[in-house]
This record gives sequence, structure tokens and C-alpha cells, in this order.
Amino acid sequence: MTVDLAVDAARLLSRLTELGRIGATGDGGCARLALSDEDREGRDLVVTWMRDLGLDVQVDAIGNVLAVREGAEPGPPVMCGSHIDTVATGGIYDGNLGVLAGLEVLETLASAGVVPRRAMAVAFFTDEEGARFAPDMLGSLVYAGGMAVEEAYDLVGIDGTRLGDELARIGYLGGLPCPGLVPHAYVELHIEQGPVLERHGEVIGAVTGVQGISWQEVTFAGQFNHAGTTPMAYRHDAGFAAASVAVAARALARELGGHQVATVGKLDLRPDLVNVVAGRATLTVDLRNTDGAVLAEAERRIAAEIDRIASDEGATVERRPLARFDPVEFDPRIVDLVEKTGREHGHPVRRLPSGAGHDAQMLARLCPSGMVFVPSAGGVSHNPAEFTSPEHIEAGANVLLHVMLRLADEDVDP
Amino acid sequence: MTVDLAVDAARLLSRLTELGRIGATGDGGCARLALSDEDREGRDLVVTWMRDLGLDVQVDAIGNVLAVREGAEPGPPVMCGSHIDTVATGGIYDGNLGVLAGLEVLETLASAGVVPRRAMAVAFFTDEEGARFAPDMLGSLVYAGGMAVEEAYDLVGIDGTRLGDELARIGYLGGLPCPGLVPHAYVELHIEQGPVLERHGEVIGAVTGVQGISWQEVTFAGQFNHAGTTPMAYRHDAGFAAASVAVAARALARELGGHQVATVGKLDLRPDLVNVVAGRATLTVDLRNTDGAVLAEAERRIAAEIDRIASDEGATVERRPLARFDPVEFDPRIVDLVEKTGREHGHPVRRLPSGAGHDAQMLARLCPSGMVFVPSAGGVSHNPAEFTSPEHIEAGANVLLHVMLRLADEDVDP
Repeated sequence: MTVDLAVDAARLLSRLTELGRIGATGDGGCARLALSDEDREGRDLVVTWMRDLGLDVQVDAIGNVLAVREGAEPGPPVMCGSHIDTVATGGIYDGNLGVLAGLEVLETLASAGVVPRRAMAVAFFTDEEGARFAPDMLGSLVYAGGMAVEEAYDLVGIDGTRLGDELARIGYLGGLPCPGLVPHAYVELHIEQGPVLERHGEVIGAVTGVQGISWQEVTFAGQFNHAGTTPMAYRHDAGFAAASVAVAARALARELGGHQVATVGKLDLRPDLVNVVAGRATLTVDLRNTDGAVLAEAERRIAAEIDRIASDEGATVERRPLARFDPVEFDPRIVDLVEKTGREHGHPVRRLPSGAGHDAQMLARLCPSGMVFVPSAGGVSHNPAEFTSPEHIEAGANVLLHVMLRLADEDVDP
Repeated sequence: MTVDLAVDAARLLSRLTELGRIGATGDGGCARLALSDEDREGRDLVVTWMRDLGLDVQVDAIGNVLAVREGAEPGPPVMCGSHIDTVATGGIYDGNLGVLAGLEVLETLASAGVVPRRAMAVAFFTDEEGARFAPDMLGSLVYAGGMAVEEAYDLVGIDGTRLGDELARIGYLGGLPCPGLVPHAYVELHIEQGPVLERHGEVIGAVTGVQGISWQEVTFAGQFNHAGTTPMAYRHDAGFAAASVAVAARALARELGGHQVATVGKLDLRPDLVNVVAGRATLTVDLRNTDGAVLAEAERRIAAEIDRIASDEGATVERRPLARFDPVEFDPRIVDLVEKTGREHGHPVRRLPSGAGHDAQMLARLCPSGMVFVPSAGGVSHNPAEFTSPEHIEAGANVLLHVMLRLADEDVDP
């Protein structure tokens, strides 16, 4: 019976558009920083839609919102979700798609009168972007027990505000305890935010896991010098050292191959003048790999390169770790289920890791978890130009629907 | 008779200190941007000293100030000079030393009742630093006929002011025409602003010429991408391209050797974030050489490297020339005279090129010219920590005195 079920894509797209109007930046983009007035307005709208659907909506102590639809039997729900906060230059799809597609899944079942064995739920998690309050994926981290709620309350935002105060101010300091209830399983639909599916003409990504991330800030202190009067042999050029790290990072990624990526995205010289040899340079190194052992090897190698570069240049070096997450592997049965369901719906499917962090990686600490990716046009995200076609959104939402249905009806725990 | 003449070092140092109080930044440094109120105050003080000495002081149409002491015979003077404007974070020696040492030379001769054959003059030139009104060495450029005075008047400063208006405002729009009178010869005492003399334990630099300068701004446009979700093979990383140019510039200087220097002192990424592959990067390349042919070769090679890097990265590149000066060679007889005079005074002397630009290079268009360098502690300049020891100042001023005397008494034009 349920095989013929399909979401109402027009309704889903209409909600995406409507939610995207809150915090609209006028260029197709969206700015709803976590716990801002715009975030409150977006939350209120989604909660209204949840309540209109007769769902049991509850808010937890970190502001995560859970809407549950009862199943035929008692027990933990099959959960989906994502986030509705955005970066300052965000699009309307990132996060929002997973939440509104989850709502669409529940509405589709309600309209069809389908009540699976297990309860089903859709959630949106607080501050996934980390654009106002670091770290990112905060709400799901706290939900999964990775950070105490009191610690989270004391986080200070880029605007000097305290997270706990802002949570109370916008009325989303709820009563459900954290860590939260352990779902039967968790599935998140999300835009890929990268170019891989589009480049290969694929529609559905069966996400195998999330890359481990290593972020560090490196500061070289050399010597300010006049670019004309200082012979090359006398220089301690912090800028040259920083540039050498960027070049070494690229070479490292090439040597390690596979899913290894390495990026120097931030590089600042002092005094940053045409005729002054930089006395100080700060750069960041972003290393990611799906394989924890290779990631650790990449960290060792770049550390050795940085030491060698500093020594050769007669510069001192300071390192500041910014973030470190081990790779996450999603539940193999859910990955298989996403792949199989995608193919059954006639879509080209690719198994691929996620290069970005997602709430699903936090939920994976609690329960079998997985993700469904749909293509991002041009691989663009965190940008007003972010776009996923209506057909791909419909395809992704239907795969989410049938993956959740199977998880909700299955006899054996995944 | 004149061989025993020596400057009064205490008087010279006292004037350096007193002039350094105008625009003092409180940290030992000095800020007297060209044609500012502080510059006016500094000019007024130096002009007062000139008049107290009975010199004939005149101001030209670009605000250069010339003070002449008559000789025993008519004819053009042996001139010395420099500038008294500073950068915003300047020291008290750069420029000021050459002007006040010149004044000290004239006062020493007057006190001793020495009247050489030729007239002698000391000048200070407007806006040598170019820190408020680009280009630098403006006053001496106009003096030498390298720019029309009307064109100079229309230059707009970093604060939006017009040079001609500021010149009139501070009362230094004078009556002498530009280009100015052609001196018999020109000699400029200046701090080295580099580390070479100090490193080698030398006291006097016989400056052979000024390096040619090639400045360009290079902008790569690649593609903004997520540092996690974009595989290495799909990247068009403008930041990597910029870093590669900095590394290539260093390699180029090493290959060309000699006096070739190459500096990437300014490098700016967009958006300059840890997790975004830079879509845009702007850097500057500063190339200098005393040999014009090698400098042109360096420009050709770095241009080819930039093209190769852009092509390899799939990025576009735009170039903007910022400045281009051919090398200047000082008059060989004056270079020899500085070297010989330094040695006769018992000082270790080095023949070396100047890595920075100086008014003397503009005067070299008009008449036989040369420079005397004294050491800069730590090679530091354009910095409140700029320092040259009293002994080195005394040595330099005495060499200036005797070089000028020889030029003023010589029978044959150099």
C-alpha cells in the first residue's frame, strides 16, 4: 500500500519559499542567525505548521524543537530533521529542506491515513551553523549529550550576547531535558553543498558518513623589513612562510589522495603592504578525511612541514587548534536502505561521504543514523545563489518518506 | 686648511631631536605627513634655522625649500638635501638627517669663515614619502622636470585633499619656478634603512645607485567553494594561486641572485574564512634590481609564472601596474669621492646600491649626484624604533662636509 505514497512537492516548495522570506536578504538569500529575531520568527512559523498538523510539539532545554506523530505501537520514534538557522549569507535550502521535507513526510502519511508501527518525528536543532554561537551543530551536540546544557548557556556570541539569555529572550528555552530521547533511528535529508552529484548526473546521495575535521590556526612571527633595502638572505618573511604552508597543504592532499582535502582559506599578513616584508602572518589549515587514521597522518605531516618552513625562514611559529572532530560512519543498513530506495524510485544514486558537518553526525552517537543528499547546483551553498531544483527536492523528499516508512515498519532494529 | 674642519655633532643631534618633537608620536616616532600642520611647523623651524644662518632661503612652486650660501665665484651651487616629511609611523632620522646635516655643513663653514669657490646649498623636497600624496619623491620629481607642477597640484591625498590647496594652506606655495636651477652637483646623506652596513661593521656607504622598482598588483578570480564538500580536483582556489606566486617570487630572486629582491608583502583572500576555498585573491609583487636588464627579465619570468599558475588552477588573472622606475646609477666620480673621503676619515666603507627611493635619484636627472649612507640599527626604518648612533651621524655629516667641499673647490666638473 505505502509504496505508491508520494509527497506533495508543490506544498513542500511553497513552505520552503515562505520560510525563506523570513530574514530574506533581497538577493535570493536568507539571514536567520541562531536565536535572532529572525530565527524566532522562522521557528514560530514552523511550529505553527507542526501544530496545524496535530503533532505533539515540544521544546527542549537547548531550544531544539521535536514534533512527534504517534505510531501503532509505543516506543521511540523514527526521527528526521535538520536545522532552520542560516549563516549571514545563507540560502533557503540548507537545513530548511530537511525540516520541511520531514514535515511533508508526516503530512503525507496523515493525509493518506497511514499509521506505521513506530512513531515518527521531525526535529529542528538549535544553532547548527555556529555562525553566531560557536561551535556549530550545537543543539544536536547537546541533544546527544556531547555538551552540558549549562555550558552551552554560557557561550558568548559574536555580538557579545549569552546563548542562554538569547534562548530565553526568543521564548525557546523549553522543558524537555537534554540529552534527549533516543530515537529508533535518525535520517536527515540535506542539500549536498558540494558539486559531486551534479557533476556525475546523480540525483540521490546515500551518505556513508561525515569527514573528520581538523582546523588549526598557525601564526608565523618573522621580521618586518623594507622590501627594497633588505637583501633576500637577511629576511625572515612570515608571509613567505604562510604561503609555503598553503602550497604544502595542496601537495599533501595530492600525496594522500582519496577523500583527503586540505584548504588554506584564511591568510592574513601584517602589515600587508606592498613594500614591507611581512613580520607576522596568520593562516588557517582545514584538513578533512573520512578515514581517521589518514586524517591523523595528514595532521602529522603538515605539522612537520610547518616546523620545517619556520626553521628554514628563521621564524617562530604558534599553533592554535580551532576544531577537531573524528570521522563519523553512518549505519551501514541505513546507508544501504537509502541507496536501495533511491534506485527503486528510478534515480541514479551515489554513495559518498559528507564534507560538511551535519546534525546527523551528532544523532549518530545515539542511534542508527543516515543521510540523504540531493544535488546543489554548481556545488554552491552558504550563498544567496544556493539552489536545488524542484525535481531533486521532490526526489529527495520521497526517498526520505520511504526510508522512514521502512524504518518505522521494520521488524528488526537496524 | 679645510681638512681639519669638522661638524659640531652635538648641535646637529640637538636639532634632530628638536625637529623630531614636531609630530612626535610619543613612542620615539614621528608623524609629519607632507603638507600637514605638523609638516608646516617642521618647515617653519628649519627655515628659521636657515635664516638665522644668513642663508638666502627660497621656496619653489611645489614647496621645495632651497637655502643658498654664496661662493667666491658665481655659478650654480653644490647642493645637498633630503626631506623632512615622514610616514605616519616614521622615525626622526629618515630624511631629516640629510637636511639638518646639510645645514650643519653650511654652519660649520660659516663659523670657520671658509668660502669655497662655488656656492653651496641645502634643500628639502616636498612629499618624499608619498604617504599622503602619491607618488613618492614628488617634490624632487617636479624639481627635476619629471612632472608638471599643475599636474602635481591636482593630486588627491588619502584624506581627499588636493595637493595644490594644501600647499597654499600651509603657506609653502612659493615663487621659484619648476623645474628648478641645475646644481653643479648633488649629494644626499641618508640613513641606510637596511641592515647591510651594520651587519658588516661598516660606517659609511658609498651609494652606487638606486634599484629599479617594479610593483604590480595581481588578482586571481577562481571559485568560492566549501572547503569540506569540494574535492581537490574540482577546485579553482584563488588563494592557492596567490600563495604559489609568493613561493615563485622567492625562487625567482634566488635564481637571479645578485641584488635581485622579490617580495609579496600584501596578500588578501576573499572571503578569508577557514572553511571556504578563496574565490578571489589579490597580491602585490615588488621586484627590484640595480640592473635594468635583469629587472626586466625578472618581470618576464614572474609574468610567465603567474600565467602558468592561473592556467593550472583554472583561475583568471588580472594585473595592475602600480609603479615602475628604472634603476639609477649615481655619478661614478661622486661615488668614488664618497668612498675615498670615508676612508680618509678612517671609516670602513662599503659601495652599495640603495634599495629605497631617494630625492637624489631625481636630482641625478639634472646633475652629477651621489649619496652617503650611515647605518640603521637593525636595518629598521619607517618605524618609531628607527635609530642611527651619534657617532655614525657625526661620521656621515663630516663625510658630507668634505665631499661637498671638494666638489665646491674642484677645477674640473665631475
